Order: sequence, then C-alpha cells, then structure tokens
Amino acid sequence: MSETLNRSTIKMTASPSIKAFACIGGKKEKQGPKADCFDRFDEDPYFGQKTFEQGESELQKRTVELAIAKAGLKAEDISFMFGGDLLNQCIGTTFGLRDFNIPFLGIYGACSTMAEGLLLASIMADNGIGGNLVAVTSSHFCTAERQYRLPLNYGGQRPPTAQWTATASGSVVVSAKDKPPYVRACTIGAVADMGVSDTNNMGAAMAPAAHSTIARFFHDTGMSPQDFDAVVTGDLGKVGSRVLCELLQKDGYDIRNRHNDCGLMLYSFDEEDVHAGGSGCGCAASMLCGYFLPRLQNGTLKNILFTATGALLSPISSQQGETIPSIAHLVWLSSSAD
Amino acid sequence: MSETLNRSTIKMTASPSIKAFACIGGKKEKQGPKADCFDRFDEDPYFGQKTFEQGESELQKRTVELAIAKAGLKAEDISFMFGGDLLNQCIGTTFGLRDFNIPFLGIYGACSTMAEGLLLASIMADNGIGGNLVAVTSSHFCTAERQYRLPLNYGGQRPPTAQWTATASGSVVVSAKDKPPYVRACTIGAVADMGVSDTNNMGAAMAPAAHSTIARFFHDTGMSPQDFDAVVTGDLGKVGSRVLCELLQKDGYDIRNRHNDCGLMLYSFDEEDVHAGGSGCGCAASMLCGYFLPRLQNGTLKNILFTATGALLSPISSQQGETIPSIAHLVWLSSSAD
Repeated sequence: MSETLNRSTIKMTASPSIKAFACIGGKKEKQGPKADCFDRFDEDPYFGQKTFEQGESELQKRTVELAIAKAGLKAEDISFMFGGDLLNQCIGTTFGLRDFNIPFLGIYGACSTMAEGLLLASIMADNGIGGNLVAVTSSHFCTAERQYRLPLNYGGQRPPTAQWTATASGSVVVSAKDKPPYVRACTIGAVADMGVSDTNNMGAAMAPAAHSTIARFFHDTGMSPQDFDAVVTGDLGKVGSRVLCELLQKDGYDIRNRHNDCGLMLYSFDEEDVHAGGSGCGCAASMLCGYFLPRLQNGTLKNILFTATGALLSPISSQQGETIPSIAHLVWLSSSAD
Repeated sequence: MSETLNRSTIKMTASPSIKAFACIGGKKEKQGPKADCFDRFDEDPYFGQKTFEQGESELQKRTVELAIAKAGLKAEDISFMFGGDLLNQCIGTTFGLRDFNIPFLGIYGACSTMAEGLLLASIMADNGIGGNLVAVTSSHFCTAERQYRLPLNYGGQRPPTAQWTATASGSVVVSAKDKPPYVRACTIGAVADMGVSDTNNMGAAMAPAAHSTIARFFHDTGMSPQDFDAVVTGDLGKVGSRVLCELLQKDGYDIRNRHNDCGLMLYSFDEEDVHAGGSGCGCAASMLCGYFLPRLQNGTLKNILFTATGALLSPISSQQGETIPSIAHLVWLSSSAD
C-alpha cells in the first residue's frame, strides 16, 4: 500500500517502473535543439488527416501505439489508460484513442496533464490495480492557436511574453517494479490563483502553483533540492521560471543551479519566434519521454522532480474578465528503486 | 489491495464508504418530480454571479461545501478531490474549486464524470491513498446550450430526440469502510463509437458504450441483473434506454424490469419541454446523490449498478463531420459491505 504523507504526497511502496516511453513531434520540433530526443517526426501539420484537430488525434494515436510497441506489448495487454489534452472536450485524446478498445479514464489538467496521468498510473501500478497502464497527452500549435488565440490565417502578432505551443505528444507505459526508470513518489497540486489575468503571460500565472507543489513535496518528505540532479518544470518559460526560483528561494529552497524548464529546452531562442519558450501538454510530455526518462534509464541522471504546470483558464473565462487559476503536479523519478 | 478482474473491473477489498453526498439544483429541477431529492435549489440561473459560467462554478462550489459539511468535515480534512464538467477546459470545476486549497485532479468524461470521479476516489480509498476524498461534477442548461448548440437568445427549436441539460451539481465524500452506502466494485469503460453523428440524438450514440461496460461487468464478475435491485444509467434518455435494453437482451442479460435512467427520472415528460429526457453531468450526479445514495444508506435498496455515460464529442468535431465517441463507467453500490 502506498503511503500518504500529509494530505497528498504519496510515497510509492514498490516503485513502479516506466516500462516504455515514446514521443513524436512536428516540423518545428525537428528543427529545434532537442531533435535527437524524439522517436519520430511528421512535418505535415495535418499528420495525414483533413483537419488540424484530426491531425492531433492521429499524433496521439501514433504515440500510444509506439509506446506500447516499445514495451513489447499489444493493445490488449494494457489494462486501462489515462489521457487528455488542451482541446475543448479533450477531442485530441477521445478521438485519438477510440480505436484501441482499451478502457480509458479522461483527465484534464491543461499542460500539467503528463504529470497527472503519470502519477495516477503510478499509484494504480503501485497498488496492483491493473497490469500495464498507459498515460498520454499531446498538443498542437495550430489547434491551440485557433482555439485559444486567433486562427493562424489572421496573422496576429505575438507579444514577447507569449509561449509557443509544441506540436508533440508523449506517452508512457507504467507497470509494477521491474527495471529503471522508477516512480518513487508524487505530490498532487491544489488550484492556485494569484490574480494574473494576462493570457500572454501564463508562465507568471503558473509559477505560484509550481512553487506551492514543489515546496509541499520538500516539506512532506523532508528532502531538499540537493537530493535531486534536476528540478524540472514544464512549462513556465523564461518569465515563470525566474518567478519560481525566487519564490522557492524565499522558503529556503535554492533550486537555481538545478532547475530546468521544458519550455526553455524544446526550442532555440536565437532562431525561432518562440518568445518566452515552449508550452502545451506536448512540450513537457516530449521532454519527459525524450530527454529525462532515457537519462534516468541509463543512469546519467539519478533523481529528478518532474513538475508539470497547467493554466486552467478558457477563452470564455478570460473574456469574462477572470484571472488564471493554475495547477502543478509533481512526480519524483529515479534510476534506483530505493 | 483491490483485485483486478480481467483488465479493468476492480473489486474493492474493504468496500469504501460514501460518507456524505449532496446535490443542488436549479429552477426547472425544483419544478420536477424529483424535487424532494435535492438538498437545495437556487432559482437564479446566475447563482448570484455575473455570468452563467460563473454561476455554474458557484453551484459546484456550494455543492462541495455542503457535501463536506454533511460529512462533518472541513476543507482541510479532504486529502484531494476529483472533478470535471462539460465546459471548455472544465472551467465550471477549476474556477469552482479554486478557493478550497484542496489538492485536485481534473477529470474529463463528459456526462460520465460522476461515475469516473466516484470510481477513482473509491479505488484510492480502498487502497488507503489519502483519507477523505471528494468527487464532484455539475452541468448548467444555459452554459451548455451556449457552448454546444445555440445561445439561448437565438430561440432555436429543439428536435424530439434532444435531451435537456440539467442545472445541477452532485458531490460525494468517500473514505475507508465505515457505514453504508458502500462501493463494492467498478468497471472502467473503453471509448465506443458506432458511427452515430446526430448531436441531437446522443442517447443512441452512448447506448453502445453503456452496453459494453455493463456486459463486461457481468462477464468479469459472473454476476447477473438479478443480483441488483436497479441497473441505473445516466443519461441515455428514452431513445438510448431502449437501445441499451435490446443490446443487453441479445447477450442474455435482461435488465428491462430493473433498468432506470437518470435522464428519465429528473423531469416530468408531460409538462416540460424536455423531449428525450434530462442530460448533463449534473443529471446523473444529482440522481445518484439525491435519489439512490439515500436509499442505499437506509437499506431501501440493497445493490445497484450506477453507470454514467458520456458523449466525447465537441462542437468542432461535429462541424468537421465526425461521429460521436462515447464512454460509460460503472460503479457497484451496496447497502452492505460484503
């Protein structure tokens, strides 16, 4: 039985394994500095389909297929899966996963979805619920721009604090303890809202959520930043990352020399119009599955905290003058099981 | 440790208790035949707020507050909670729950959300993860019409197969085994899509998902309809209910004399413009929390299967000519723990 510390930091008893992981990206991701982290690319933003939305579903479907295949499994070997995305009613996921006939639990955590799915699958695996479990998420620049901001055809200009939504998907297969990487613990975040209402500055809106969840993990476990090779967030971007480090500094947790933000990793700032960094569920998911998990698997990294952050707004809430509630979920990943 | 039968039917070991439950409705629900099932009503569709969406958040907030109070608890006694709704990016939930400072996991299952949240909370409680856990969902006629169909001001006519979205919210507090009602098992559904594309006939689209999940539960557990006082669905309405009974009949499961659909319970068909019945996350949630759970608590009902169904479409997917993927999650509820 997993052990619950305080209210919502859950220590795994038997350290479930991430049996396989996969990530697929689009054209811009292929041109970026982390191109070698991706399993595959498709430079067609439609992924062979008729619409961008159908393309995102296809992207997510291919990523799950690849993760399951890399685990040496078939769809019928998966007990159930967790998935979600940024689109209204999560259609990237529901249409992407409909052909698998795998029992499915839909989740919504905006860009925190990868951490939410991974922690839920890990708790299940640690308690022997089901056998092999899948978590997946995706984002797509063209579907996100149309839905959250302006259709691409409009040609609107983006302010310097805006982030670039990744066209990418990441998926993991989690099972009972086997080989590294292992999931050691997680902290479920609470909704935080510090009153930021600028939808072009979501890093600042999400930093307090990341701060609250990371500080709570350190408090609940008695661990400190020095116990980790990297404290990873996704996706605070430039602005939010600075705010997070300052907030944790005030609590006595100095993460500055080990902080990494997936939004700052995925793209090159010199050459591309990415402004404050990458974002979207697929950004943190692809950096987790393409960069961090392989390094935990081969032991280059020993322990990391993966904290994905989500801005829980909608275009309607912003039009109605609301501020931006945010959330962050944390997973402690390790190359060793104890 | 809960026992997993086949892939995704999970038998509880220690039968978690639903410690408290609450539901709040709107004006039409107050005028309906199940008015005495609600804890409270607010006849103001804005619930004292400025917009319908803010009203739905307020409705959900009040329902969670009431459920926690009925359990004799405070917000800080809740380990974490599961919630979601029909609105784009689930803003009914994220804004409704932001003031609680309770760790939160967002879920999306359209109108299956109450069953999804309840089964996740129950699995956690059965395995000692956290202490008291909350699940909540809501729907609102005015927000749903604006988002999925037409703004109310437009005055569009509704076809006879259309269902009426309930303005209602339901919430439960789940904890380790204590008093009835108890959660005995659950079955996680897979996405089903039989090619129905008429968004005014979602009952027909969702019936195959309900069929698949209920048949799988009977298959996995070896139980039969005769073991239950009621086989409850929400919300198939008139059309979908008939389809479900016929599909199960073909498998040899006759549920006709014990089938109940939340969409057929909430409103009176003679007097109101509800056509094929009620719908929306709040319909199944309020009938669960207002009608079924009290009867399981006092022993009037011994065992029921509660299967909430969700149509996983979005307006964009329908505009792009897609069919309607659906899902159904099942929870076995009982007045006895074993």
